[in-house]
Amino acid sequence: MKKATFYHAGCPVCVSAEQDILNLIPSEEVEVVHLGSNKARIEEAKTAGVKSVPALVLNNGNVLHINFGASIENVK
Amino acid sequence: MKKATFYHAGCPVCVSAEQDILNLIPSEEVEVVHLGSNKARIEEAKTAGVKSVPALVLNNGNVLHINFGASIENVK
Repeated sequence: MKKATFYHAGCPVCVSAEQDILNLIPSEEVEVVHLGSNKARIEEAKTAGVKSVPALVLNNGNVLHINFGASIENVK
Repeated sequence: MKKATFYHAGCPVCVSAEQDILNLIPSEEVEVVHLGSNKARIEEAKTAGVKSVPALVLNNGNVLHINFGASIENVK
């Protein structure tokens, strides 16, 4: 079972963080969601508590906002 | 070889993030440094680019600031 979902939007900060996260966390344990190309999942991310991207939402409900790429409002 | 150093300062945000990070990253790959009880390493963290804690500094030099617990200036 995946432990986390990584939400990003393709911004430079997001891409850099994505590479770093996937280097740290086994790839089978994290799902990567590009909100720019998958806008249907923006509401899911907001409901989970994502305020900005990139962010990592864990299965325990915690949200780790990693650096700052863009506000979730700006992704819409 | 460790892939990352996790700097924190014992604040609630730090402790929560530490538990999450150690749940995601194999513990043998991350060193945890408590800057509140190990002030000698504050300069090392600042030199690495840490602006606030908790933060994860990777071996490639990238710094992932995770949520926001406290400014590194306030840790001193």
